[in-house]
Amino acid sequence: MHTPDRPLKAAVVGASGYVGGELIRLLLGHPSVELTVVASRGQVDQPLTAMWPHFGKLTRLHVSAPDVPAIAQDVDVVFLALPHGTSQEAVASLFDADGAPISGAKVIDMSGDFRLSDPAVYTAHYKAPHTAAALLPRFVYGLSEWMREGIMASQHVANPGCFATAIGLTLAPLAARGLLPAQVTVVAATGSTGSGNKPAAGTHHPSRASNYKLYKVLSHQHVPEITGMLAQLGGETKLSFVPASAPMTHGIFATTVVQTDAPDALADAISAAYADAAFVRVTEGSPELNHVVGSNFADIGVMVGDRELVIACAIDNTIKGAAGQAIQNMNLMLGLPETSGLLLPPSLP
Amino acid sequence: MHTPDRPLKAAVVGASGYVGGELIRLLLGHPSVELTVVASRGQVDQPLTAMWPHFGKLTRLHVSAPDVPAIAQDVDVVFLALPHGTSQEAVASLFDADGAPISGAKVIDMSGDFRLSDPAVYTAHYKAPHTAAALLPRFVYGLSEWMREGIMASQHVANPGCFATAIGLTLAPLAARGLLPAQVTVVAATGSTGSGNKPAAGTHHPSRASNYKLYKVLSHQHVPEITGMLAQLGGETKLSFVPASAPMTHGIFATTVVQTDAPDALADAISAAYADAAFVRVTEGSPELNHVVGSNFADIGVMVGDRELVIACAIDNTIKGAAGQAIQNMNLMLGLPETSGLLLPPSLP
Amino acid sequence: MHTPDRPLKAAVVGASGYVGGELIRLLLGHPSVELTVVASRGQVDQPLTAMWPHFGKLTRLHVSAPDVPAIAQDVDVVFLALPHGTSQEAVASLFDADGAPISGAKVIDMSGDFRLSDPAVYTAHYKAPHTAAALLPRFVYGLSEWMREGIMASQHVANPGCFATAIGLTLAPLAARGLLPAQVTVVAATGSTGSGNKPAAGTHHPSRASNYKLYKVLSHQHVPEITGMLAQLGGETKLSFVPASAPMTHGIFATTVVQTDAPDALADAISAAYADAAFVRVTEGSPELNHVVGSNFADIGVMVGDRELVIACAIDNTIKGAAGQAIQNMNLMLGLPETSGLLLPPSLP
Amino acid sequence: MHTPDRPLKAAVVGASGYVGGELIRLLLGHPSVELTVVASRGQVDQPLTAMWPHFGKLTRLHVSAPDVPAIAQDVDVVFLALPHGTSQEAVASLFDADGAPISGAKVIDMSGDFRLSDPAVYTAHYKAPHTAAALLPRFVYGLSEWMREGIMASQHVANPGCFATAIGLTLAPLAARGLLPAQVTVVAATGSTGSGNKPAAGTHHPSRASNYKLYKVLSHQHVPEITGMLAQLGGETKLSFVPASAPMTHGIFATTVVQTDAPDALADAISAAYADAAFVRVTEGSPELNHVVGSNFADIGVMVGDRELVIACAIDNTIKGAAGQAIQNMNLMLGLPETSGLLLPPSLP
Repeated sequence: MHTPDRPLKAAVVGASGYVGGELIRLLLGHPSVELTVVASRGQVDQPLTAMWPHFGKLTRLHVSAPDVPAIAQDVDVVFLALPHGTSQEAVASLFDADGAPISGAKVIDMSGDFRLSDPAVYTAHYKAPHTAAALLPRFVYGLSEWMREGIMASQHVANPGCFATAIGLTLAPLAARGLLPAQVTVVAATGSTGSGNKPAAGTHHPSRASNYKLYKVLSHQHVPEITGMLAQLGGETKLSFVPASAPMTHGIFATTVVQTDAPDALADAISAAYADAAFVRVTEGSPELNHVVGSNFADIGVMVGDRELVIACAIDNTIKGAAGQAIQNMNLMLGLPETSGLLLPPSLP
Repeated sequence: MHTPDRPLKAAVVGASGYVGGELIRLLLGHPSVELTVVASRGQVDQPLTAMWPHFGKLTRLHVSAPDVPAIAQDVDVVFLALPHGTSQEAVASLFDADGAPISGAKVIDMSGDFRLSDPAVYTAHYKAPHTAAALLPRFVYGLSEWMREGIMASQHVANPGCFATAIGLTLAPLAARGLLPAQVTVVAATGSTGSGNKPAAGTHHPSRASNYKLYKVLSHQHVPEITGMLAQLGGETKLSFVPASAPMTHGIFATTVVQTDAPDALADAISAAYADAAFVRVTEGSPELNHVVGSNFADIGVMVGDRELVIACAIDNTIKGAAGQAIQNMNLMLGLPETSGLLLPPSLP
Repeated sequence: MHTPDRPLKAAVVGASGYVGGELIRLLLGHPSVELTVVASRGQVDQPLTAMWPHFGKLTRLHVSAPDVPAIAQDVDVVFLALPHGTSQEAVASLFDADGAPISGAKVIDMSGDFRLSDPAVYTAHYKAPHTAAALLPRFVYGLSEWMREGIMASQHVANPGCFATAIGLTLAPLAARGLLPAQVTVVAATGSTGSGNKPAAGTHHPSRASNYKLYKVLSHQHVPEITGMLAQLGGETKLSFVPASAPMTHGIFATTVVQTDAPDALADAISAAYADAAFVRVTEGSPELNHVVGSNFADIGVMVGDRELVIACAIDNTIKGAAGQAIQNMNLMLGLPETSGLLLPPSLP
Repeated sequence: MHTPDRPLKAAVVGASGYVGGELIRLLLGHPSVELTVVASRGQVDQPLTAMWPHFGKLTRLHVSAPDVPAIAQDVDVVFLALPHGTSQEAVASLFDADGAPISGAKVIDMSGDFRLSDPAVYTAHYKAPHTAAALLPRFVYGLSEWMREGIMASQHVANPGCFATAIGLTLAPLAARGLLPAQVTVVAATGSTGSGNKPAAGTHHPSRASNYKLYKVLSHQHVPEITGMLAQLGGETKLSFVPASAPMTHGIFATTVVQTDAPDALADAISAAYADAAFVRVTEGSPELNHVVGSNFADIGVMVGDRELVIACAIDNTIKGAAGQAIQNMNLMLGLPETSGLLLPPSLP
């Protein structure tokens, strides 16, 4: 697919958000792909370093207007790092009236817009109609380790949410082996970057710095994303998911507790599933957020009790939970080595 | 009991630890009790402010040697803020050969040594024999809101552990009403002061500042403390307790998830139980750690789902989870108003 | 002044800001003053606990509209915790057309509006005309330890800024003794509560949590406030002041460096000045922010070098740097003991 | 120098410290150098991932004993990441009785042992005699941007200290142009990783997380390191250096204040000096720690006042202040591009 004498080109649309920024950071260091377009509604024609000063002396790129159809003509892959809702419009602009793609560029959508197959479920969770429902079947759900074949074969990938990645990697091995318990409890803590780069009460430093609270209890929009993914693998469960806001900047730490008569069988299924995975490490005892932040790793620890099992999964929400997994998917879609540009060691301590 | 023309006197044994420091802080501000003795093995005869410089210009106390029997002759209440194991010896020194108290001073033990009625369970969790098992029946478990009568009537109180306080306050209303589900899952995050003031790997700032991990999964020593307390109230459950180490300095945030056909009944029982409690507030939606840190409050939020219930409890581990509850117990034991010296507003933000 | 058979009453106007919240917190615990009015433009008639949930079960107050003249009729002291500019209007409303106070209530203004005697200097730093310049002479500058007589005699106090308090306490002893060097360098770090409770880029947790940067370098509005105060004490200097934004939530740590032939004389002057001060403690070596946060203390350390001197001052910006010093001033103005309601130990650790 | 058909090999001696860990992290990602030896006194023969779990699935290296002479035979470059004092012995073992190197391997010493030319000054600051003083002249001081020629020509480099790097980069342009003022004041804040990975009171999370204090005021061991470096460039000054401990994990932020009649000339000298530097960026206004942490960049902001100048420099203490600059020096010594393996974008936010 990739002709080595022509460097592959990538565009990031939505450059000013944290996910956009992290995509830029990873693409600037990618050995086989050149970041040629960074687009945003604001600061058009300004140097990218006016938007993100930390990239000074690393790039001379300027910000482009987000003319998505035009951008797609000039690159091999487009990352859409746009808010939910806005992304639908951008995706729609990449198809003609007959529903055919107007360009051969791969499209990786970072929003929640194309992760759910049923537009009614989308509306229930995102509180808005889906304006591009006809395009939903075009998208493969991009949980890299479990949807690899589909991702490689598809032009369009819906990149998973951060919680959905951590919980999906936890439960997918059970679903795939028919071992998923009928009820699963997950309490998952997230760092503040998960709320994006727009200042708000929940991320105001004086309170966030030492706070801990729950939010969207039992009603988070990642629940149908996870159960939909598990269903694809043949599993069904009642997922009791409690998200928590914790005082880190980075990271998701998902603690899953299940009651089961066969905790060892479940533990073994998880260990076996990831023996050869490049980016999933099964740890002895609990994983630690420190060991994954700054990297594309997901660390999973399995702790067996008496007819019960605790499974903990730690990821960097902006990397494995967003931009890193997107690059991993890009690698798969473009025929590059899956780990290309992603073997960054975590930044501990 | 208290003759108002003679101020009540208190001693803190184990002044150098965090719990000791916090007891001193609260007693310095207590309107009816005078802190007259602060004892520690180190820095004897030094000003207390050499040990704790932040008390400068607030006290002229000097550190005494921890001669517990002698101290007990001179005060109305002794707080033992000693490590597990050490506390047994101190308590034993307060009884004569016939097992009778050598002084009328009230004793509030902050360690885990007298919280469990069965010495074999103690040994299983604290990895050491109990050397004062005969004295266990002397102690009342000091969960103030639920053991009030017993505390008022007793000379000896075993002050609850921090996790046990948060989880105990969550589940006690269900146990008391016969509503405790057969299985309960709790994931609870703690701040770093819970590990004490001795530097260690788990509290090394470069890693703790942004870390999150589990520890003592399904095996924490507070489990039998909680189940023992629930049994006293008539409840029994399989408690799946997962403690987590989070990057705050203060606070316990316990998230309890139960599967039940009657979530509303459980929610109502909790709300009703604390309507008149001075220090337990039932919140709308999730509590926040910020709203309790620095105070003796426990905030409990009850969130009803579809045949499931999430109950969250937030406390300051060093106050309601240790020194504050101990002062509350002291007030009860000495016939003072329960809230005396404890109506500190939380320090938010 | 104070008839003990009638409790003194206080009002806080501007209840929703951090300074307002902290004033409320301290007044709720004050033994001789009752908080009877909390006013704000928003949430009028709502319970105060809707605005500040952490005060639950501590107060039944409801929010009043900020009708300042009416409020002043009903209380003994009014705290104006309003933004710069807005405060001028509130103060003006407390005077009649002839410039006479319409009520005998004491007024403590927390803003910068009445700290500078020259309205032109005000305009230069606050970028707006002063609309109540005729009232400036009414106000005494409220650096409690140095303006005590004036504060006690005045009906109107301009409460100092947070940086100005830390630096003022550092340099006042030198000015008063004629020892102020001709040039003084101060680098002072502030926590994020100093920016108020409105979310903004500079206090967005993902960046603030680990950031450090300078702002308003050599141009901070507290410079004329400090030099004006020093001039009152007879001192003059070129103050090179560099404020820094650091990743704490609370605290100001001001590091002052001077070149001098007589460092010991300066050090002695500082120690001597505060020997009997209730709230200023001269430490051996460097002070620590931990030792003052949560309290009204200012800790000052003096470190002598070779023809140079380093003086460090640590305060809690919201307490000694704002609400605590205001209560201290209130105590002075109302004839109460200066320390009343303020002997809170710091919350370390 | 480098034969491209044979990959260059590197060894890290002292793998268990933060500097060792960071060297490993950077070398694992270096395109032209293979990390073949990681040595430590403890955990010999264990997988490196037992010591540093975050490197799981990134390396199969095992820990070697620190037999430095043997190691030096097998690699092209040895990094000594050992404590002060210990490093002298390791260096001495690399020379024979006649003072000739026993191997051609480049040696980069991360300790303070070979940064000062005068052993008496060493003893005054490090409180111990220098046992390898005869070898001091072998070492070039490794401030990459200013000692480039010397570094390229030398087999032995003493890598600068973290504060010395930030302050050295600030003042070197002034010294080189004869513009260094006679007196310079620097207040510099450091993150907790600067204290190493051994738990201690100063890095205990409950106190460090919100603390700020000074230490080694006017007596830090980096002062002679800086003045020695400036002297090499022809500058002399009285440096009033005040180090501060701040609650970040990473970063040095050095604020320099000078009184000068020609602030613009100084500002221009700094801007000009770094126009072409790969890793030094002159910012508009203040730099921010966030913009450099995770990278090898030093950001310098120059703010001109009225006959005064503020210069701020921000670096990541473990990268530009230690391991990153060491790799930069390695690149220079081995004839590789100076930026090889180091163009990591900062990890903001």
